[in-house]
Order: sequence, then structure tokens, then C-alpha cells
Amino acid sequence: MQTPFPPVTPPRRILMGPGPSDISPRVLAAMAAPTVGHLDPYFLRIMNETQEMLRQVFRTRNPLTMSVSGTGSAGMEACVANLIEPGDRMIACINGVFGGRMADVAERCGAEVTRLERPFGEVFTAEEVEEAVRKVSPKVLGIVHAETSTGALQPLEDISRVVHDAGGLLLVDCVTSLGGLPVEIDAWGVDAAYSGTQKCLSCPPGLAPVTFGPKAVEVIDNRKSKVQSWYLDMTMVRNYWSDQSRAYHHTAPINMNYGLHEALRIILEEGLEPRFERHQRNHQALKSGLAAMGIEYAVAEGHQLPTLNAVRIPDGVDDKAVRGRLLEEFGIEIGGGLGPMAGKVWRIGLMGEASSKRNVMLFLAALEECLATAGVSVTAGAGVSAASEAYRSA
Amino acid sequence: MQTPFPPVTPPRRILMGPGPSDISPRVLAAMAAPTVGHLDPYFLRIMNETQEMLRQVFRTRNPLTMSVSGTGSAGMEACVANLIEPGDRMIACINGVFGGRMADVAERCGAEVTRLERPFGEVFTAEEVEEAVRKVSPKVLGIVHAETSTGALQPLEDISRVVHDAGGLLLVDCVTSLGGLPVEIDAWGVDAAYSGTQKCLSCPPGLAPVTFGPKAVEVIDNRKSKVQSWYLDMTMVRNYWSDQSRAYHHTAPINMNYGLHEALRIILEEGLEPRFERHQRNHQALKSGLAAMGIEYAVAEGHQLPTLNAVRIPDGVDDKAVRGRLLEEFGIEIGGGLGPMAGKVWRIGLMGEASSKRNVMLFLAALEECLATAGVSVTAGAGVSAASEAYRSA
Repeated sequence: MQTPFPPVTPPRRILMGPGPSDISPRVLAAMAAPTVGHLDPYFLRIMNETQEMLRQVFRTRNPLTMSVSGTGSAGMEACVANLIEPGDRMIACINGVFGGRMADVAERCGAEVTRLERPFGEVFTAEEVEEAVRKVSPKVLGIVHAETSTGALQPLEDISRVVHDAGGLLLVDCVTSLGGLPVEIDAWGVDAAYSGTQKCLSCPPGLAPVTFGPKAVEVIDNRKSKVQSWYLDMTMVRNYWSDQSRAYHHTAPINMNYGLHEALRIILEEGLEPRFERHQRNHQALKSGLAAMGIEYAVAEGHQLPTLNAVRIPDGVDDKAVRGRLLEEFGIEIGGGLGPMAGKVWRIGLMGEASSKRNVMLFLAALEECLATAGVSVTAGAGVSAASEAYRSA
Repeated sequence: MQTPFPPVTPPRRILMGPGPSDISPRVLAAMAAPTVGHLDPYFLRIMNETQEMLRQVFRTRNPLTMSVSGTGSAGMEACVANLIEPGDRMIACINGVFGGRMADVAERCGAEVTRLERPFGEVFTAEEVEEAVRKVSPKVLGIVHAETSTGALQPLEDISRVVHDAGGLLLVDCVTSLGGLPVEIDAWGVDAAYSGTQKCLSCPPGLAPVTFGPKAVEVIDNRKSKVQSWYLDMTMVRNYWSDQSRAYHHTAPINMNYGLHEALRIILEEGLEPRFERHQRNHQALKSGLAAMGIEYAVAEGHQLPTLNAVRIPDGVDDKAVRGRLLEEFGIEIGGGLGPMAGKVWRIGLMGEASSKRNVMLFLAALEECLATAGVSVTAGAGVSAASEAYRSA
């Protein structure tokens, strides 16, 4: 019997959306290495090495640092479900889709959730968080470091202090920051954090790096009830990921972990600081180019993510038509807006492998053509010239 | 900065354990195809095709058939969490580790769980299930078609009838059967089922095929409470997997889905019936070979899985030493026992790509050498001769 479907032959995209980002051929090759068993001595070594590299990227010494066998949202659920028991108080800071998602997850775990809200695209001050934690005395405060839906970067140091002063745990979403800008788990005192592989780590989606600090582990150790998700229950998963028992829990996604291992090797070869500088440099060049084309950021100066550039769609421009042309004619994927920002912003990702001078220049050239066709008045070559100038003066 | 860890270069194993099983180079190559976005028109096509092929393999017309973004255990949790609301009655049939796991998952979802138990390795009769469902009137009865921990095959047709007569839904674990022996979702009236990619589908671990029939979908549609797992909430996930809205839920593991797509293509090219016959043929040959070496099955005749052969470790033989030698000297992985069967049985998988004459013959030859060294009296060449004879007379 012949199947009616052709083999997988994807078009070659340039992934400048909100993720997945471009993947190195080295990572793709690692994904295709022969599968071994989940208890094979070779795979146990890969797990140990991956944990050690994740600790370097998270900048932490937390022993409980590993990859959850699901995408970033599974990492979110793993953190919340392990820290929260029914009736626990949690504050969710919501200034975008992913803060809202955290509140939803926490409520499903039985938390008494207080929503601290800010308009999409803004960030929280330590003062308003302090007021909230004093009032609520939450077990956990959850906040998003890099809001993928809005492009806003949330400072965390002062917030960490006020949460700890009130006796709470700080849970951080660093899905769109890890590997692209500084994430200082230990220096900032973050108690638990999760990320996804498909953003600044430049590995295909499918795993969620997580880390739990000493106070979070203590909370998990002293739970009165079982974690409501069997699949994400760290009291069992950690035995498989620890050096001692290696007790079987579920079959780890072997080849996905090969990919993450190679992606982390690439990151550490480049070095975290040079990598962060590269992300900044390309972000600044893109920003200069967009400014020259009259395109504004949706997030205030000083809070713009270098990894995800949320910009306002010029008046009268058809969002979907432009994104469709970029994809079809140039193979470039960018993202539309989510939630209240749908149709109002574009989200241009410069994450991991995708954060390159080549991509910035091509994108500006491609966008100019799309806008010109759409009848928007743009000075010819203004975007690429301004970006080029930014690179030269960087 | 150079990272201290070498790149991924796994040893080439022959995976004859309880999974993962051997993977076709075609599937590995598909995993390494360029990543595209999760809303890319190309990926939406891959999703549609994968769903259609999964329906063929599950032998169902259920529209809600797709891959959950986690391993088999996430598929189990997805089925239970979507069908169960707090206070619902569920019967879990437990004759191995995975039936027990289902009970644990159901309790964490708030179900009032009745455990129907059988010793490990035995199967359930329709009569005892009938008695239980009459007494309990459960919303859901969960049962394992192919118990990976014991190698037992559970007949389902009569059980389906008695569960439906009592007004319940039948939930089936077909992790170690799908793609290796008949799984007749529609003909048997299975209301919901889950599997894993790393067994008879011969795709790396990381996804869980699931299917929900009309009555299961009705139950999901009429839930009074939110599904407790956000990540696995089918009321949202299905919108992403349906042709209409394609509403973003989480970022699907793109490359894992490429791999599954290719694995399904291979299955449908071979044809389901020829594939099931191949699994039977290799199982019978292995069994003949093992019998000639004096090795017995742990499961009674007539209930032995062709895909997972659980056999008693001969008296006086060191379980771990033999498995260690098989792995080190021959690159062959087989599994040890789980739970009460630890140290007492070996689990020899003949799943998907691993179910081959070549593997059967090599394994028998390798085992003979290991047993001879361990001081077990085995007639030289008896195993391979008997297997060879079985192939010739098949």
C-alpha cells in the first residue's frame, strides 16, 4: 500500500517570529543521531551534561535544573503545579498573554490567585509589587521576565527583594529571555524559573528547561498533597534526573535532548556575554532601520526586549497581507499580535541563530518592498541605510 | 569559551527493550528537516496529514485524533484529565505498572477510583469487569491493551460491550500495541485511547497519539469544570489541531511531528496487516528459540504480546550482568522487570523496526553466549536453530 502523502520537505524559512527561531544545522544534525534507551549509560551522560550546561545558561548552582518533557507551557505548568497546593495564595503579574496564562494555570492547580494587572506592553514597578505582596502575603509570585506577547522586558532584582521580604517565592517565566539576555537565577534570587527551547536557545520546540532553588525544593519536599500532574511531578521526575537512583518515570524524549545538548554547546562556545551583546547589537540596528521607516515600538524606551521587537503596524496597512508576502516571497516569518494587540502590532523576533546582521538587513529590505506595494510612503533604502549605519557605529 | 562537553555521538544500539525501539534512518532524517513555525501553512498541512494517517493506524474516523506534545504518559494524563471531573467514578484495571499509573493519574484528577486488580501478567475477563461496572457504574473504565510492564495482551471487545452496557466510557492504553498489533478503535467501540511514538510506531519518544470518540467528545464538551491541566486541555488544544480556527495554544514540537509523519508513512507503506503479521512471525521465532534454550514466558499462552516478550530469568542468572553484557558486547538493549517483576523477568521488545529476523537471530546467539558464560547449560546453537526452523515453517 502506498500512502497518499509525500515525505516531509519543509520550505526553508527565516524564523523571525515569536518562536520557533532559526535552528543551527548542528542542532538539526544532533536531533537525527541514533536513538538510545532512556536508561542507556550514554543517555545518562547526556542528561548530566545538559543539566550542567543549563546551570551555566541559567547562571545557577541549583541541583534541580533539567528539561521538562514538553514545550514552554509545560514548563510553566510544572513550576506552578509543583509549588502550589490547593488553597495556596499566588499573585500573578499580568501585562501580557503569558502572565494571564500563569494565572489560569495556577487557578487550575487550586490556587487562590490575585491578579496584579498592567496594560499590555507595560512593566511592573517594585513599589506596586511590594504593595501587593504586603496585602496578600502570597506563597508564590509569578512574573514574566520577557513577555513574548508584548515585547516588554521586566526588571526583576528589586521585585525579587520585595517578594522575599514578604516571605514569598519568586517564579519567573524566562521563555523569551534565556540565552538571549541576562537571566541571573542565583544573583537575583529567583526561586523557580522555566523557559522553552525554541526561542533564544535555538533548538526546536519540545522541551522546557526549568530550575528550582533551595527554597522551592523545600516547598516541594514538604507538600501535603500530591502534585496534581503525574507527568510533571518533580518529586518523581527528579529521581530520574538525579545521579543516584535514576528511577524510571517516563521515557524522556531522547532526540529532543540531543538537540538541546548541541544547542547549549553552541551557546557556551559563543559565550553568554558575547551572545547577549550580539542580540543587543542586532536589536539596535533593527530599531534604527525601523525608525528610519517611521515604524514605532509598542513598548516604551528602556523596556524593549532585544529578542522580540513588538512594533506598531503603520496605519492603513493590512497586517495579514504583509506577513503573507514576507512569508511567500522572502520565506520570512514574523508574528502578529496576540490578545488585545492582534492586528495592531508585528512581533519581530531576533532570537538565537535568527539574531544576525544578515536577517536584519534582509528583513528591512523586504519590509520596505511590502510597505511600498501597500502604498505606505517610505524613503527608498532608508531602513537598510540606517541599520547599516548603526552597525558601523556599534 | 570552549564547552567542556563533546558533541552528541551516541553508540549505535539495537533497541529490543520496552521502548524506545529502533528508529528508521528515514524518521531520523525527517527529524532533522528545517524547522518551520507552528502556524506555517506547511506545518498545518503536516498536522492534517498526520491526523489522517493516525486515524488509519488507530482504525477510526474520530475527528479528534492527534498527537499530544509529550510522551505516552502525557497521553494518559491528557485522556484521564479531559474525561474526569472531581468526584467522578472511574475503574482502573490494574495488572501491571501502567494500570496502576492510570489509577494514580485519575486520583490526582479528583476521581473516585475503584481499583480492579489482577496479579501482574494476567488479564481481565469480561465477566469480572461486568461485575465491577454493575457495582460501581463508573463514568470511565481504564484498561491497558498491551501491558508494557508484563507483556500481557488484554482482549477488549467483550469488555467494551459490558462497559457500554453499564453506561461507561472505555479508555484504552495502547502504548505498546499501536502499529504492532490490531487496535480497532471504531470496531471495538473504544471511546478514548492513547499511545506513545517510541514503541511500535518506531519514532523517537516525545509525542503521544490520542483519539477521542463521539461520546468522549460529548463528555468533554459538557464539562462543568476546567480541565485541571492547562497544557493538556483538549477544549483548547483541539482548536489548534482543527481546520477552522487554528487558534494558538502552545508551540507544537515541530520536528518531533516531522518524525511521526515519516514513521506513519512507513507504516502505511508496509500496510497494517503485513506489519502485524511480521510482528507475529518474529515473535513466534523468538519464542521457539527461547523455548529451545529452556526459557519460559512470564505470561500464559494466548495472552502473550508479540511486541513485548516478558520471559523468566533462568535460576541463578544475574539479571544486570547479562543485560550489561548484551549492551556492551552486542549493543543490544533489553529491559529488566518493573515493580514486583524486577529481577525476575527480562522484557524483550520486538517493536516496529526492531521486529526483524536479523534481530531475533542475533539476540538468540548473543543470549546463548551470555548464558554459557554465566554457567547456564544451553545446548549449543539450539536457540538459533529453533528460530531458523520456525521461520522456514512459517
